[in-house]
Amino acid sequence: MTPERRANLNRLLNPRHIAFVGGRDAEVAIKEADRRGFLGDIWAVNPKRDTLGGYPCYRNLADLPETPDAVFLAVPAPAAVEAVRELAAMGAGGVVCYTAGFREAGDIGVELERQLIEATGDMALIGPNCYGMINYLDRAALWPFAHGGTCPGWGAAIITQSGMLSSDITMAQRSLPLTHMISGGNQSVLTIEDFVDHLADHPAVRAIGIHIEGLRDVRAFEAACLKALDRGVPVVALKTGSSKIGASLTVSHTGSLSGADDLHNALFDRCGVIRVKNPSELLETLKFLCVAGAPKGNRVAGFTCSGGGATMLADHAETIGLNFPSFDQAARAELAALLPPIATVSNPLDYTTPIWGQPAITGPVFGRAMALAEADVTLLVQDYPAEGLDESKVYYLNDAKAFTEVARGQGIPAAICATLPENIDAETRDALVAAGVAPMQGIDETLNAIRAATRWSAMRRRIVEAKPAPLLPARPSGALHMIDEAAGKARLRELGLPVPEGRLVSGNDVVAAAEHLGFPVVLKMIGPHLAHKTEAGAVAVGLTDADAVQTGLETMRRTVHAHNPEAVTDSFLVEAMAPKPAAELILSIRSDPQFGMALTLGSGGILTELVGDSTTLLLPAGAAEIETALRRLKVARLLDGYRGSKAVDIGLLANEIADFAVAVITHVSEIAEVEINPLFVTFEGCLAVDVLLHEWRLSEAVG
Amino acid sequence: MTPERRANLNRLLNPRHIAFVGGRDAEVAIKEADRRGFLGDIWAVNPKRDTLGGYPCYRNLADLPETPDAVFLAVPAPAAVEAVRELAAMGAGGVVCYTAGFREAGDIGVELERQLIEATGDMALIGPNCYGMINYLDRAALWPFAHGGTCPGWGAAIITQSGMLSSDITMAQRSLPLTHMISGGNQSVLTIEDFVDHLADHPAVRAIGIHIEGLRDVRAFEAACLKALDRGVPVVALKTGSSKIGASLTVSHTGSLSGADDLHNALFDRCGVIRVKNPSELLETLKFLCVAGAPKGNRVAGFTCSGGGATMLADHAETIGLNFPSFDQAARAELAALLPPIATVSNPLDYTTPIWGQPAITGPVFGRAMALAEADVTLLVQDYPAEGLDESKVYYLNDAKAFTEVARGQGIPAAICATLPENIDAETRDALVAAGVAPMQGIDETLNAIRAATRWSAMRRRIVEAKPAPLLPARPSGALHMIDEAAGKARLRELGLPVPEGRLVSGNDVVAAAEHLGFPVVLKMIGPHLAHKTEAGAVAVGLTDADAVQTGLETMRRTVHAHNPEAVTDSFLVEAMAPKPAAELILSIRSDPQFGMALTLGSGGILTELVGDSTTLLLPAGAAEIETALRRLKVARLLDGYRGSKAVDIGLLANEIADFAVAVITHVSEIAEVEINPLFVTFEGCLAVDVLLHEWRLSEAVG
Repeated sequence: MTPERRANLNRLLNPRHIAFVGGRDAEVAIKEADRRGFLGDIWAVNPKRDTLGGYPCYRNLADLPETPDAVFLAVPAPAAVEAVRELAAMGAGGVVCYTAGFREAGDIGVELERQLIEATGDMALIGPNCYGMINYLDRAALWPFAHGGTCPGWGAAIITQSGMLSSDITMAQRSLPLTHMISGGNQSVLTIEDFVDHLADHPAVRAIGIHIEGLRDVRAFEAACLKALDRGVPVVALKTGSSKIGASLTVSHTGSLSGADDLHNALFDRCGVIRVKNPSELLETLKFLCVAGAPKGNRVAGFTCSGGGATMLADHAETIGLNFPSFDQAARAELAALLPPIATVSNPLDYTTPIWGQPAITGPVFGRAMALAEADVTLLVQDYPAEGLDESKVYYLNDAKAFTEVARGQGIPAAICATLPENIDAETRDALVAAGVAPMQGIDETLNAIRAATRWSAMRRRIVEAKPAPLLPARPSGALHMIDEAAGKARLRELGLPVPEGRLVSGNDVVAAAEHLGFPVVLKMIGPHLAHKTEAGAVAVGLTDADAVQTGLETMRRTVHAHNPEAVTDSFLVEAMAPKPAAELILSIRSDPQFGMALTLGSGGILTELVGDSTTLLLPAGAAEIETALRRLKVARLLDGYRGSKAVDIGLLANEIADFAVAVITHVSEIAEVEINPLFVTFEGCLAVDVLLHEWRLSEAVG
Repeated sequence: MTPERRANLNRLLNPRHIAFVGGRDAEVAIKEADRRGFLGDIWAVNPKRDTLGGYPCYRNLADLPETPDAVFLAVPAPAAVEAVRELAAMGAGGVVCYTAGFREAGDIGVELERQLIEATGDMALIGPNCYGMINYLDRAALWPFAHGGTCPGWGAAIITQSGMLSSDITMAQRSLPLTHMISGGNQSVLTIEDFVDHLADHPAVRAIGIHIEGLRDVRAFEAACLKALDRGVPVVALKTGSSKIGASLTVSHTGSLSGADDLHNALFDRCGVIRVKNPSELLETLKFLCVAGAPKGNRVAGFTCSGGGATMLADHAETIGLNFPSFDQAARAELAALLPPIATVSNPLDYTTPIWGQPAITGPVFGRAMALAEADVTLLVQDYPAEGLDESKVYYLNDAKAFTEVARGQGIPAAICATLPENIDAETRDALVAAGVAPMQGIDETLNAIRAATRWSAMRRRIVEAKPAPLLPARPSGALHMIDEAAGKARLRELGLPVPEGRLVSGNDVVAAAEHLGFPVVLKMIGPHLAHKTEAGAVAVGLTDADAVQTGLETMRRTVHAHNPEAVTDSFLVEAMAPKPAAELILSIRSDPQFGMALTLGSGGILTELVGDSTTLLLPAGAAEIETALRRLKVARLLDGYRGSKAVDIGLLANEIADFAVAVITHVSEIAEVEINPLFVTFEGCLAVDVLLHEWRLSEAVG
């Protein structure tokens, strides 16, 4: 973002005056600006109407009393382009282009959008094809539909790619404090990345929520999110379209493990972004982060006034790996003395109905339990009665108040949550927000939010310490050609990765080559149609003598011929058979036109598809990140020494992989994709037993 | 349930008169009966007060004008026992024993509960330590707290083991029609099983929701749920306590794969019960089933007025395996003609804002899309505006009405769902319920509910067709002893399961035995401390000649000695080495004191712990059920012919396993547990390569 555009974005987000240009939609937007309580000037622009939303109309932009800071445009697309051009010339701050009919509408729209971008110059432009912007802090709205939402002077900024979802969120009943709502639309000029970058600097923005269908600039996103992380502003992402985008992006015909969704996950993990699964989780996670703050650690002290509630907390916490540490004997005794005899001391703790609503008793129970659990965060489950049935509400509030006071006294993030999301009324929610306790809705949703917040703290520590190098530049996709296994292995050897000792010979020389290498050997037919050798019958392993080699050769010719006569060649790779490894991995590095180079690691060999155990990192990645990734895999159990066998040095393995990744990166202009499966992991180091290597076609490699 | 108790339960659930016995809690309960609009007689019983809740007090039960059909007891535990005895003698119908202090309170309570059960005789008794019962249909409540909930004359019956959860559910804002709410407490007399059995016969009960912490009688539960299934009444279960109960039940020290949670899943699957993960899912699933009904199949037609919404539908549907079938070219053309040019024809379909709220246009779009998709069920996403911001609500209602009409015309279950659970107001929800369209809350929640309902239909067809034999009786747990591998394999052979050819010999005879069997062989040391041979170094495989056997023997003596000197024996099992199988399974059959015999199947060998791929069936189970279970496993991909290899006949394999299970069942008085890992699956049949077999100790086997 240029400094000029940034200054203009400031004017657009916090304008002194807004011009609304258009008819019915502009009229609704004027009413929404009024509803928000906008204190600046509202100017209506319409050549045919005298008033719009109660304001007198200017005939055209040139008639405006001053150059507007912000303009809401709801006119047909070609007229919008002209208006933007005029506004840029006037020196306006920015535009919300509500108008649709641009890129999303096909070829004519693409050209119009190009013109729109050009016309915008250094102005700030949100859209086109968007709902616009609401600034709750400064009471400015450029928004074409009825909207809700409140702001106590701080809160979450939300940026979405779906106007409807933006609107739905403003209608939510969750008491989530909001600072900004931005519906980014086509992101022709200003992108999600720009908004994150800008809002991360705002002192009232405690967290940023983003809904992503697709990013425009992965590197700018990385930089903006790392800045937010550095500032201590969590970014929570709802990434949708995994099912469709996964299909629409080109997937390597070598059967790469990592779809686009994995690349997004790798990006989020790299820059400390929390990913959530649905809009409810987005709002609950933002609410917890904004109101309670991120806990330093993973230790939770939980309270309920029902055995059933405690059980549900414990069940879901176990599922997601959230820690309710149990009390030791001394702590149990101390707490038992504060509780009725029927209570069972545990964490989560059912403090039981006999003391319910008696803060003089429940307060000390909450306080001691938090302290004894050495809690990083605390949670009380309360389902408030519904409106009209709330004779007992005072008891709930008594305990809530006691809980709030002791949690604040101990300085740890705190939440009160209802089992059913709706069982905590707006009045109670608002009071809790004011008291700094997150009013959470749904047990599972709450625990997920706490888990995400603790994970964010850990990510932040890790990333701030590691200071990762920025992502490699991506290169556009181009035509590839696969080189055969023998050539691929020669390439690997050049890049410093060990491969089995072997010889590429004709059928007549296979036995001699085997005898030279020493038995047992592996025999493979090599050829352009033999990318999938196992299926074609082009592999024979464990050949222990010359006869076995000769027989294997003949059988192979027959089976490959039966599979595909055109695949048969007289080129054979004879290799010394590698001893059984500690584990088999799959390792792939590939070039993605958007994300750059990506490294995927997973369970290899037969486990690859059976277990579906893989993880992806974007490059560059250091040995420490690679080690962390390896430890995430299920196959790490084999590496760690399975059933009494020796453990592999995972740190060393990570170093070898990191060195190989660097070697591939330095040859990025030639190597497009390399997939090693299996990569044998032995106690002496790793060994690439099979490889599929794609190079850029020469014409592309030059470009 | 005896016929007398059943008749009395009828009186308790739909009483002509209710006696409320006690003080403050009884007073609240009287008010709740009034709130519910109870039309029968309300009698207050209190020896010290003149009135209770506005009703004059009888001094004692004997003074009542008639024998009461129903009694709410809120007096101390010993007095409750006496009151129950007196009521039984009077011929009262039934009692809600709100009083706590029974089994949950330790030894004295256990004795009191025994007395309570004895005193109850043939009466119906809910509790003790429960909230009681609300009959929404007939306006009867025996309930000690403010409660909500409504009933249009049909709906869901809910039975819980947590009073607090019952109360929370009555407070929910979901427009779920309710017929009954029963909080079962300690289930001393009447159990969840009894209530399911009873309510499945009620014509107004369209679905039954149960919250289970633990079942009292697994076989009665099976029978009751199968009856409900037969009647077409879905049972939806929220089973909590998996994390705790799993730990508290005795887990076999042989490292059984299947915790108690798996046994519950096996039970639910056996009798067609839907399992849900949390209270929201419980209510949403019940709502969909009660209002819309269970779809015949898995084909969904989905509609949104936002690309973002369609994407979220597609994403989650893919995750849970719900099918939004895509339109073929002709269908696309037909729908495109009904839609604005900017619309993209897909399923789910974003029908786009230009036609939003225009039922003359949207109705035909909905109708043709449902028909062309051959939909079994249909779904429209609408987030209604919040109260006070609802100028546009009429457009939503227009589309809702058009959708409702065409869905009803096509006779398929239909739902309208909000993206955020709260974005559909009570008035709209109630109107939709009246129109037979389920008003659903949350996209993920809705899709999960539809998935569960389609699964229920499939389970029902399968189970009604298969008519499974009832569960085997369970036997109490007792002391076990493990027999060694050689003896275990001899046992397997007797039971008809193939094992490798082998000989049990002393160290001196190992080489001779190997030569007799033919190379390669496997050598194992056999002894009481060698249950885990791999870890102890007590296995050597692939010994190809006499030298290798002798060397293997000596190495084994050393390694076992290093592992544990006491484990060393001079007893060796020499076996012909089995060729590499198509796949390795784990197969275990064990006796559970509550569920009876259970069969667990999973990925075997190294994959057992690595992949965590297992499934459990309760016995008896036929070959068809076993085949279905096998096909659920990840390892089924290997059985089905992996990477071009031959496929195993899974039907034949299932037959072999079924025969083996029958053989074990017939020896249930001797065999407590058998775990075969790996079970080699070859193209010729299966082969038990290793076994851990536990028998009951003799003294127990007799008992």
